[in-house]
Amino acid sequence: MIKAPYLLFLGDAPDQLSAKVAQGINDWRPGRAVGQFRMPGCGANLGLPDMSLDDAREAGAQTLVIGVANRGGLIGPEWKKVLVEALEKGFDLASGLHNLLRDEPDLVAIASSSGRSLHDVRVPSVPYPIANGKPRSGKRCLTVGTDCSVGKMYATLAMEREFSRRGLAATFRATGQTGILIDGDGVPLDAVVADFMAGSVEWLTPANDDGHWDLLEGQGSLFHISYSGVTMALIHGGQPDALVLCHEPTRKHMRGLPDYRLPSLEAVRDLALQLAQVANPSCKVAGIAVNTAALDESDAEACLSEIEARMELPTVDPFRQGAGRLVDALIAD
Amino acid sequence: MIKAPYLLFLGDAPDQLSAKVAQGINDWRPGRAVGQFRMPGCGANLGLPDMSLDDAREAGAQTLVIGVANRGGLIGPEWKKVLVEALEKGFDLASGLHNLLRDEPDLVAIASSSGRSLHDVRVPSVPYPIANGKPRSGKRCLTVGTDCSVGKMYATLAMEREFSRRGLAATFRATGQTGILIDGDGVPLDAVVADFMAGSVEWLTPANDDGHWDLLEGQGSLFHISYSGVTMALIHGGQPDALVLCHEPTRKHMRGLPDYRLPSLEAVRDLALQLAQVANPSCKVAGIAVNTAALDESDAEACLSEIEARMELPTVDPFRQGAGRLVDALIAD
Repeated sequence: MIKAPYLLFLGDAPDQLSAKVAQGINDWRPGRAVGQFRMPGCGANLGLPDMSLDDAREAGAQTLVIGVANRGGLIGPEWKKVLVEALEKGFDLASGLHNLLRDEPDLVAIASSSGRSLHDVRVPSVPYPIANGKPRSGKRCLTVGTDCSVGKMYATLAMEREFSRRGLAATFRATGQTGILIDGDGVPLDAVVADFMAGSVEWLTPANDDGHWDLLEGQGSLFHISYSGVTMALIHGGQPDALVLCHEPTRKHMRGLPDYRLPSLEAVRDLALQLAQVANPSCKVAGIAVNTAALDESDAEACLSEIEARMELPTVDPFRQGAGRLVDALIAD
Repeated sequence: MIKAPYLLFLGDAPDQLSAKVAQGINDWRPGRAVGQFRMPGCGANLGLPDMSLDDAREAGAQTLVIGVANRGGLIGPEWKKVLVEALEKGFDLASGLHNLLRDEPDLVAIASSSGRSLHDVRVPSVPYPIANGKPRSGKRCLTVGTDCSVGKMYATLAMEREFSRRGLAATFRATGQTGILIDGDGVPLDAVVADFMAGSVEWLTPANDDGHWDLLEGQGSLFHISYSGVTMALIHGGQPDALVLCHEPTRKHMRGLPDYRLPSLEAVRDLALQLAQVANPSCKVAGIAVNTAALDESDAEACLSEIEARMELPTVDPFRQGAGRLVDALIAD
């Protein structure tokens, strides 16, 4: 668990997009970051107060979170100076970079001598069990996509926000680096060893109160041949009561696989439901989240209407419309 | 790649069953082991010459293979003495124990100073790529099971033997510890990190000559919630042209999951074929291998006839009958 509050490190991010992890934290966990730390040439701005390390410590910050992705995921010398100083001033560090904090001997030495934590959220930190498949109390909803990167994390967080707005008990369960940095906890599922994938998902979504919903962030796609095993483990380990299908309607082919066409929503519905019912026979498809960012307002409306009529399921773009109708469907039973 | 020939270490195996890895090597790669090494109290016997380390080195042995599974998978002090001496006498070591050779500092020190190799076949030794899904030449057959431990490795090796008997080009591709020790090479798929599972299977079964068959050892089951993600990665990474279904007809529930019933062969056929056709639209189910070891001869015959009539696919017990009819089906197209 990453200690809050945070100071968000934007470094020398060339533009807003490269700071999307920090943006996600600020959007979904407002108040968790006391400020942003920008270096000369930084082209990103979250609208948070610019703070020095000392300012942020005075404001209570516990962890410097690297909220920027750079080419190659490397920690350069300019960044390193800041990270070293942050540890010396009492910050923990958290990062989703390929270049692990723990692989930097100077950071390890300072963290170890000063009792600070280095959180590499790409790397599992728990010895996960093998999945046992036993039924457990509480409800779970999993987002499953026609492809990778179609908005599963966003839809899941939007549902959490809507549950919270209504005063209903629900927990976002992160399964990827960005989700873990946003939430401060989770399982980096793509880095878990094969035998323990489904078990790590069981571990992440334990038995809970009867009315409580775990909202489980999906990964990959059953139809994405590179990552389908990860999706399978989420479906079988998550033992979901409900699935929300996620889709991006303008995608021409599977992400990174030019020769693979996207499956239909019908195909994803039928396959995911069949697999989910192995672990939870009462699982249902609750609704559909469509990422219409690439469409203008009227095309987006037409797209959502067409899918809703065809699939006979509540269909929303959670960014444009919020996740209210998805939550309605989840709690209707 | 583990260097042959081997000396098979049976240690103090209490009975024949605990030496089943050594038995598998001797059954499927006859001639690869020059002898067996047994300690006082050993209750297993492969019928190979009993040899000292010196005898075996003189007979050309390159690797001492730990062919015995003990409780907890630990390397005790009595075994350790032999392993140390073997390294000193010029053997490489190979093991599938949980207790890794590389976690024993004395073994590491001797191996390193003497230039010997320690093969822990439970642990990947290759930085596998992410699967790219591109079509590749050569043919591939994958065994898929109704459950774990229903005879997938056996069926795959029996097909390899039959191809070889007919002088046809085929290669067994090991994906588990026992298979790797038998063959000397392979991918320990259950220990591969999630993102690289399908890629490791592509790596294991590269493009090959047009008439060549890779015979890919299956793992887990699409219906075994603990390991289904591994099976999925085999189906999508292996891009099989043919599937052979594997079944054990007396199994009461999924292995290790008392509340989960076995799927029907029809369900496995339909699901596995649908998934396989995502990566290879021309994939077919070629036949069925049934492990009838728990049935007497007449019950076994009745069982095989019933399945064959129902499924309309060549159905054999490869142990009782060999894999001839499966190979016929594979090469028929």
